[in-house]
This record gives sequence, structure tokens and C-alpha cells, in this order.
Amino acid sequence: MEWLLQKIASGSIIIPSNNVRKQKIHNVGIGRGLKTKVNVNIGTSTLNVDPEAEVKKARTAVKYHADTIMDLSDGGDVGAIRRTLLEAAPITFGTVPIYEAYNYGVSVHKNPMNLTEDDFLKAFENNAKDGVDYTTIHAGITKEIAKRILQVQRHGGIVSKGGTITAAWMLKYDKENPYFEHYDYLIELARRYDVTFSLGDALRPGSILDSHDELQVQEMINVARLTRRAHQQDVQVMVEGPGHVPLNEVAANVRLAKSLIGDVPYYVLGPLVTDVASGHDHIASAIGAAVSASEGVDLLCYLTPSEHLALPDADEVKAGLIAYRIAAHAADLVKIRDKAIKWDMAMTEARRTLDWERQIALSIDPEEAARIHSRTGQHPGNNVPCTMCGGACVYIMLPQQRRYEKDKELQQAG
Amino acid sequence: MEWLLQKIASGSIIIPSNNVRKQKIHNVGIGRGLKTKVNVNIGTSTLNVDPEAEVKKARTAVKYHADTIMDLSDGGDVGAIRRTLLEAAPITFGTVPIYEAYNYGVSVHKNPMNLTEDDFLKAFENNAKDGVDYTTIHAGITKEIAKRILQVQRHGGIVSKGGTITAAWMLKYDKENPYFEHYDYLIELARRYDVTFSLGDALRPGSILDSHDELQVQEMINVARLTRRAHQQDVQVMVEGPGHVPLNEVAANVRLAKSLIGDVPYYVLGPLVTDVASGHDHIASAIGAAVSASEGVDLLCYLTPSEHLALPDADEVKAGLIAYRIAAHAADLVKIRDKAIKWDMAMTEARRTLDWERQIALSIDPEEAARIHSRTGQHPGNNVPCTMCGGACVYIMLPQQRRYEKDKELQQAG
Repeated sequence: MEWLLQKIASGSIIIPSNNVRKQKIHNVGIGRGLKTKVNVNIGTSTLNVDPEAEVKKARTAVKYHADTIMDLSDGGDVGAIRRTLLEAAPITFGTVPIYEAYNYGVSVHKNPMNLTEDDFLKAFENNAKDGVDYTTIHAGITKEIAKRILQVQRHGGIVSKGGTITAAWMLKYDKENPYFEHYDYLIELARRYDVTFSLGDALRPGSILDSHDELQVQEMINVARLTRRAHQQDVQVMVEGPGHVPLNEVAANVRLAKSLIGDVPYYVLGPLVTDVASGHDHIASAIGAAVSASEGVDLLCYLTPSEHLALPDADEVKAGLIAYRIAAHAADLVKIRDKAIKWDMAMTEARRTLDWERQIALSIDPEEAARIHSRTGQHPGNNVPCTMCGGACVYIMLPQQRRYEKDKELQQAG
Repeated sequence: MEWLLQKIASGSIIIPSNNVRKQKIHNVGIGRGLKTKVNVNIGTSTLNVDPEAEVKKARTAVKYHADTIMDLSDGGDVGAIRRTLLEAAPITFGTVPIYEAYNYGVSVHKNPMNLTEDDFLKAFENNAKDGVDYTTIHAGITKEIAKRILQVQRHGGIVSKGGTITAAWMLKYDKENPYFEHYDYLIELARRYDVTFSLGDALRPGSILDSHDELQVQEMINVARLTRRAHQQDVQVMVEGPGHVPLNEVAANVRLAKSLIGDVPYYVLGPLVTDVASGHDHIASAIGAAVSASEGVDLLCYLTPSEHLALPDADEVKAGLIAYRIAAHAADLVKIRDKAIKWDMAMTEARRTLDWERQIALSIDPEEAARIHSRTGQHPGNNVPCTMCGGACVYIMLPQQRRYEKDKELQQAG
């Protein structure tokens, strides 16, 4: 406990927990020495507003053990949807306030570019007041960087929605990013409600071709400075990372980030290690996620199979979450091996003893394991091979021969 | 071409191609400097013999671009099944002859332990005569190692079927492994039919807890020696690797193997980076596969979601193959970047220009990408956002603002 408090004080572990959130929730710690955590994104878009579907996704996330959830709704009545989802998902809950601002811009100003500075700040406050535990704010993209965007050639352009809105707004009015300009005010609000900052990466690459370009790295430097400012005021911080990164730059990304931001929780979106896996981006990004987490990432933001194609449905939320829980555990076998290995040890024993009931119960997704194994026509628990190897099951033939060898020894000795 | 011939002569590239296989097939090269290849395993077990289902799986493998296929049948009339599958899959084709021997032991001798040395060798010859391009032989597991198995504690035991049969047989008769004892005869047959050896790893770990133990490494040393013996007789060789390896040992595995065997194609099964992902082992192993291939593995043997649970069906064959093609491409972006990056570059451009038709065509699995995208209710090709981001699509808002900025400049200049 002493250990934990020290880590929290130094900022290397955070426990996001809004003080106005009244319901009993499952809080998690995120940071060095702890299990890698997995976040699930849900939420409406302007083209797909179905609050009930979002509730179903939230329940799916909780059922399959998401550690944190983010409501990214920007279509419909985002305030009401958020409050409904906060009830439906009693786990650490995050949002991106600028999405509410965008929604307000579309619905009230009839154009998100007509947002005022006040609208940006008000959106943050609304989220904090509703009990949101952590909020992504794109405070690191300054006006100077926004102008630089017009000079720098990028294959994938800018792919952060929040960053895009902010950049377009700054360019239109030649004004500074409200979340950067009024960062002290956000700190004040964050202190009042115990909101954790998740410092967003507006300039993360949207193609592996753009990985670690000047825009991305410049923003990371700004974010490192903002991290220290928040820490000076005792506001909890994590920092967000990419995105799209080739496999041989994933470790470098984590090391660069931690070198700049210090021993602060790092929260990445995958990363995707190729751009061509549409329809299976949960797999392409689970590869990057496993490697990034094994190198020190503390919280993984999942991707679903529908990334780049459509808003995910509940089945895709499950598929993404399971892929990421695999990635997180694979990383924990590196980062906190002694603790994490117990699960694999139990599974190994269940396999060796052909204890199917236990194998299925120990699977990362017992439902799916049971569904597949049931094709063998056998109830779990039987000491029989599955259809994969049939009679040639390795856990029958050699152990049998081993027993014969032992019997022979006994006979010879006797 | 000169370059290729030199690589083939030195053994760092192989093109498995049996000289009695008369049909026109799609041959592939495997080895340094070439694209990472993906192998699909299919085949019956004693508990599941359905040749038509296997043909369907073979066709699925070809349809979704497997580079090589292995028929691992050990149930039913394995010779007839093999010949049917050779017709159904006009791609590089491999088998594990000891599975035919096992099948013969069960059906004719009524016990696989009653196999004779001749049965082992005959099985190899039958496979070669049928036109199989490459065969896995577990020649590296000697009687000495088999005895050592009885002394060494392993969490996961021995999990190679061929290795288990061989070890049990050697222990029963106190005789040497027929494939080791008569390796020169196998070389003779391999030369006659142009069969490539895939030197199997009978002692690969079956749990990440057993990774790189003395049994595995001792066999690897033996295999390195056998590789040189085959090369001296101009027989093409690749070497097989694990299996189950924690993420932080995957690179070390590849380096150790290549250090021992030299610049020879290395062919691994994943590896799985955790043991707990039953039902989703294609994902857990695609993580290991991507990392191992980026470190120098040349051919990846896929796993399906049903690994450890049941014989896969055709849908699971597709799921495993797609996961591995993603892993292979992610690795190629590291190993042969200039060549591999073109695909990601094209996809990035299709995304930036909201060219849905092209995005779907460029996806690793266009069928699945189209299925998901169709939920947006839009035909591909339209210059509109998908339901994921809706109106907040990054490829609409900022480019629009960019155009306004340019217009402003024009006005000011004009």
C-alpha cells in the first residue's frame, strides 16, 4: 500500500476516479508494475445514433472484462447518452469532451467551425460534472503545429477527430487551441472533480508511412511539458500514443515517449503494424499492442474488426476486446512474469491432464472455447482426446509408454 | 535470376517442387530476401475423417492465398486423401510421413507401437512417390534424447505427434529413431523425387513455461547437423521451430536457430505467446508470428481458432490464414520494406481520398471488409464518410479548411 501511494504520488500509477461519480464502480490502477489494462471505445457518430445499441456494447465490454471504457459519442444527445452509459458500465469511464463540443457545434451552431472558446471549455466541464473518470484532451496541438500541418506532407493526413476539429478551428480563426490556452483552467476543473487527464495525440500517424514524423514528435514534446504542469497541480495524467507504427518502430515509440514524458502511464491505440488489414484491424493492432505493452505501455486502447469501415457492433466489440486481452496478457508474461505465468501454468496442467472442463474455464473466452470443443461431441471433463489429434493425442501415447517404462523398472527391481 | 540461383545453391532459399508432381502448380520460393510465406495445415484425425471437408479446407486455403499447404491426415485412407488434396490444392504441398506410418500402425498392426522400421521408411517413400513437395521428418530426436525425456520435468510434456510416436517407439524397443538411423536412405529418396526436407522439432515446447529447455535446444543442435548432411547431398532443407514462446524470447529463438542452422529457411508454428487463448489461438500466435518473421523467419505455419480444442472447419482455416497473412505482411514491412510498403501506400491513399471501392479491394480480406462496410448503407466508391466517424470524418473537415486557407491566400494575392 505504501508502495502504491508512492507510485501514485510520483505519477507513475494513476487510479482515475471522479469524485462526483456516486455509483459503486470497479476502479483500476494503471501504470508501472501493474497488469496491462485494456480500454474499449464505444459511442455514436452523427451517422449512427442508437443509444440502446451503445448500452449493449457497454454491457458486452463489462461482461468480457474491459478494464476501462470510453464513450466517444458525437451524434444524438451526447449528454444523455453519456449518463446512460455511465450507469450501464460501472467501470473506469473516459470521454473526449471535444466530441460534445463538436456535437454542439453541429446541432446548435449548425457548423462545428462556429464553436466558441467557451463551448470547448464548457464541454470539458459538462463531462467532469457527469462523473467521467478521465478525459482525452488534445492540448498538445498548438496553433504553431496546426500551421505546420499545411507545410508538411503526410501520406495519411491528420486522423485524430479531436485534433482535426481543433486544427481546423485554429486555422480558421488564427487563434490558439482553447485547451492549450486555458490549460490552467482545465487543471482547476480536473482538481475540483478529480478528473484524470489523458493527453491526446492529435498528430498520431494515420498510416505507418507517417510514423514518427516531425508533427507527431513535436506534439509529444508539448505533451511532456503539459504532463509536468498537471503534475505540479496534483492532477493525474496519462499520455496517449499511436496509432499506425511499423513493427520495428513499436519499441522505439514506447522508449521515446517514456523518455520524454517520464515514468507516466502511456496509453496507445494498438498500434496497427500495417494499414491493409481492414476487416481484421483488431488482429493487426493486437500485434502492435502486445509488443508495445511488453515494452512498457500501461493501457491499451482496442480496435475492432470494423475500424476504418463502420461503427462496430457488439460482436465486434467482443472480438476487439478479446484480441486485446490476449495482447495484454502476452505482455504481462514479460513485464510481470511471476504473477502472470500462473494462468498459463494452470492451463498447461489442464491440457496435460486432458481436463477439458478446466481448459475451457481457463480460456480467455470460455464461451467460444466451449462452442468449438463441443464439435467433438464430447462433454468437457472427459479424459479423452479432441478431434484435432484424435488417437494420436500426445497426452495419451507417450505418458502411457512412460508408465510401461516405469512398470518395467519395477519388475526388474522386484 | 543469377542472384536466386546462388541463394538456392547455398541453401538460403528453397523452392520445394517434387519432380513427379505432374499438374501445374504455383511454386513459391522460401528464404532470405523473399516475402514471408504462410502455410495452412489441414487433414483428418482418427476421430474426424471427412475427405470432402478436407477438400473444402484445401480450396479455402487456395482461395485466400495460402503459399503452401500441409496435409496432416492420420485418419481414414490417408494415401487416397493425400492424392485428392494434391489435386485440390495446386500449390506447394507438404506432409508428415510418420502420420501415414501411424495410420498404418493403427489400421494394420492394430497398435502404432507395433510399427517396424520399414513401415517408417515406406511411409516416407509413399509420400515422395505421390508428388509431395516437402515432408516433415522428426530425425533430430534421437534415442538419447528420448531417454532424457524421462528425466527432464516439462510442464507441457512433448506435444509433437510425430515426436511422441517416435519417442514412444524408441523407448519401447530401445532402438534408434528410424529417420535418424536411415537418414542417408531418406536423402537418397529425397534426391530421387526432389523432395525438400522440413526438419521437424519433436521437442518444441508445448507451453511457454518450457521454452528453450535442454530438450528443445539439444534437438536443434542435432537438426543443424542433419541440415549440413542434407546440403552436402544437394537436398533442399528448411528447419521447423516452435510452438509456445514468451514474447521476449521470440527474437532470441530466431537468432539461436539461425546461428545453429546457418542461413537456412526457418519455419515456425506461430509461436503462441501465451497458453490461455484457446478459441483465439490464431490471434495469440499471430503476435508471435509477426515478431518471429520480422526477425528472420521465412515461412509461418498458421494456427486456427480451434487449435487445442477441435479439428478446424473451413471458416476457421480462413480465420487462421488471414491472421497469418497480416502477420507476414507486418514482418515484410520490416524485412523487405521498399517492396512491401507499396500496398500500405495505396491503402493510405484510398483512405485519404475516401475511395471505398479501392479500400475494399486493397483489404487483406475484401469480402469481410465489404460485409462490414455495407452496414453503412452506402455503396463503395462514394466520396462520403463511414458510420465510424460520420460527419466528423477527418478526411472531410481539415482538407476543407485547407482549401479555404488556400482560397484566402489566392484572394489576398489577387
